[in-house]
Amino acid sequence: MDAITDTIQLTDADRLDRLRLIRSDNVGPRTFRSLLAHFGSAGLALERLPDLARRGGSARPTRICSEADAHAELAASRKFGVDWLAPGETGYPSRLTTLDDAPPLLGVRGAIETLMRPVIAIVGSRNASAAGLKFANQLARDLGEAGFVIISGLARGIDQAAHRASVASGTIAVLAGGHDRIYPSEHEDLLAAILESKGAAISEMPLGHEPRARDFPRRNRLISGASLGVVVIEAAHRSGSLITARMAAEQGREVFAVPGSPLDPRAAGTNDLIKQGAALVTEAADVIRAVEPILERPIALSLREDDGDPLEGDPETSERERIINLLGPSPVQIDDLIRLSGASPAIVRTVLLELELAGRLQRQRGGLVSMI
Amino acid sequence: MDAITDTIQLTDADRLDRLRLIRSDNVGPRTFRSLLAHFGSAGLALERLPDLARRGGSARPTRICSEADAHAELAASRKFGVDWLAPGETGYPSRLTTLDDAPPLLGVRGAIETLMRPVIAIVGSRNASAAGLKFANQLARDLGEAGFVIISGLARGIDQAAHRASVASGTIAVLAGGHDRIYPSEHEDLLAAILESKGAAISEMPLGHEPRARDFPRRNRLISGASLGVVVIEAAHRSGSLITARMAAEQGREVFAVPGSPLDPRAAGTNDLIKQGAALVTEAADVIRAVEPILERPIALSLREDDGDPLEGDPETSERERIINLLGPSPVQIDDLIRLSGASPAIVRTVLLELELAGRLQRQRGGLVSMI
Repeated sequence: MDAITDTIQLTDADRLDRLRLIRSDNVGPRTFRSLLAHFGSAGLALERLPDLARRGGSARPTRICSEADAHAELAASRKFGVDWLAPGETGYPSRLTTLDDAPPLLGVRGAIETLMRPVIAIVGSRNASAAGLKFANQLARDLGEAGFVIISGLARGIDQAAHRASVASGTIAVLAGGHDRIYPSEHEDLLAAILESKGAAISEMPLGHEPRARDFPRRNRLISGASLGVVVIEAAHRSGSLITARMAAEQGREVFAVPGSPLDPRAAGTNDLIKQGAALVTEAADVIRAVEPILERPIALSLREDDGDPLEGDPETSERERIINLLGPSPVQIDDLIRLSGASPAIVRTVLLELELAGRLQRQRGGLVSMI
Repeated sequence: MDAITDTIQLTDADRLDRLRLIRSDNVGPRTFRSLLAHFGSAGLALERLPDLARRGGSARPTRICSEADAHAELAASRKFGVDWLAPGETGYPSRLTTLDDAPPLLGVRGAIETLMRPVIAIVGSRNASAAGLKFANQLARDLGEAGFVIISGLARGIDQAAHRASVASGTIAVLAGGHDRIYPSEHEDLLAAILESKGAAISEMPLGHEPRARDFPRRNRLISGASLGVVVIEAAHRSGSLITARMAAEQGREVFAVPGSPLDPRAAGTNDLIKQGAALVTEAADVIRAVEPILERPIALSLREDDGDPLEGDPETSERERIINLLGPSPVQIDDLIRLSGASPAIVRTVLLELELAGRLQRQRGGLVSMI
């Protein structure tokens, strides 16, 4: 059991409000988190949303997900066996709650108890060699026997081998699209086998959402975020698995890589990871030894610095203009904005939230923001 | 040029004395070093040798290499193109001088200038795969083009590939037997090609010495010791190349290992080395980047702690007995001997030297000694 101590349980009304908020225009996981922290509930944030977006200079009225649409989504999801869970609820993978861009609601299908067990991610190239597939199979089996759940992306190649080898012991598929839009479609049988055998599937996307290219890196953060560590088996230079490894490192997860001959291009990415500090893996024991101490530590819910600060009721028009003038298409540090504008941190954050909700601002890695 | 600042030049008489001393019974490189430090010259040490060994309880008179035998060896060596050089002389590889068991005289054949250039060792299994041989060839060629001399053991497999690929740029073969006893004998042609192309061969053994099993680990310390770092390409568990890697680490040399698939037993040893902290190598740049900063630093001649202390003229019989009583077949720390005997460090060292010259004492790793 890899559990956090406090669990919560949303009311039906709160779940509906949360779904409406995250399905509204320009609200991503980070904005959701700021809004919830500042207004105390999704319901109150929904009420303030149009006003904030208007102040941020939204050209057209912000589309807010209606109560009816949210009701319909919840009903359709339930019919498909998908529950929408919030961080801290039973069934929401406990490690995932620590991400500052954790999905505010996660669509969960399958065995709740498997989602609450300690998880190791196994990822790698779709175009894997026979040796890579064999090793993935062996590693997933051994980690499964040692009590770990295997998480992966249901892709061809390494993902598929890792899932298959851990169907019996417990495995989680993380989807880039909606639960009813499996990619690749020939893996629907594999998913069915996973779900029949106390496995699970998770997605933050609504039913009917066809996965697009940009959804895969976004999905990958859930693979690494839900796990104690990520094992990369066979990855060429610039492979998608390396994005998962980078996210794992940024999220403070262990990164493991399986070595290969320098003459094998499918090992170029994993060898590079090891050069950069990833732990070399040749057997399950290498992974288990490294994650055991982490299992002992309680899971700390991540709190962003600004979470506790109240938003200002209404920044002065001159302040807002000063801050907007400092922004442009080149990313700038929020700290620099505060220093250069002379406005208080709370005012700067409020203006940025307004702009974000108006669809005019983009947040990037490392506290950087830019105008769209 | 990977050179030390001070060079020396032995007189003919001193070279003869040194050869006699190192060819005498029970005198190894470490004992030689102690004797030289304490008596100031090999000639004076030779004079004192019988007396020291007798006091150590030698059952029979210690055999001292005669002047005639040493003359004969020097003459035969010269005829074969072998010079016997002392640490600090031009042609004696400069890194090798830093070992506390550096050969007091090294038999050197070939191009002096190549022996004075910066050196990288490439070692690996005799039973190498085609991929391992190809990589050894590529790495040796690239390091050679970058100005490094390749050193190796003239064995089959990786050694052979590394030498061959660096014949043009400069390579050094380190022999476990005498210069006229090449092992394996089918590599005599390779050695001839090396010598013809400004390469070199080195050995600490006299002409005519057939290499025995125990000579190879002893030889391996010269491969690692003469180099800035050792690259291990393909090594199974418990392979001889891992001994070279361990010696390299003990000597403070860089250890590099080439990764391979966990399913390939020939990569088990190198993957283990990386787990233990060796740098992963997939191309010459990985090696060059790591050794460049070392090249900048001046080479420090190693001085053992006890080098400066004078030997006592004559330990009391009772002191000698007390120390001998504390010794047995189980290795003990010299520090413990000093503490338990109550004798001065100089007295303890003198008694140990006497016992060593009498063939009754064995020194081991980490300041341990035991009676034979």
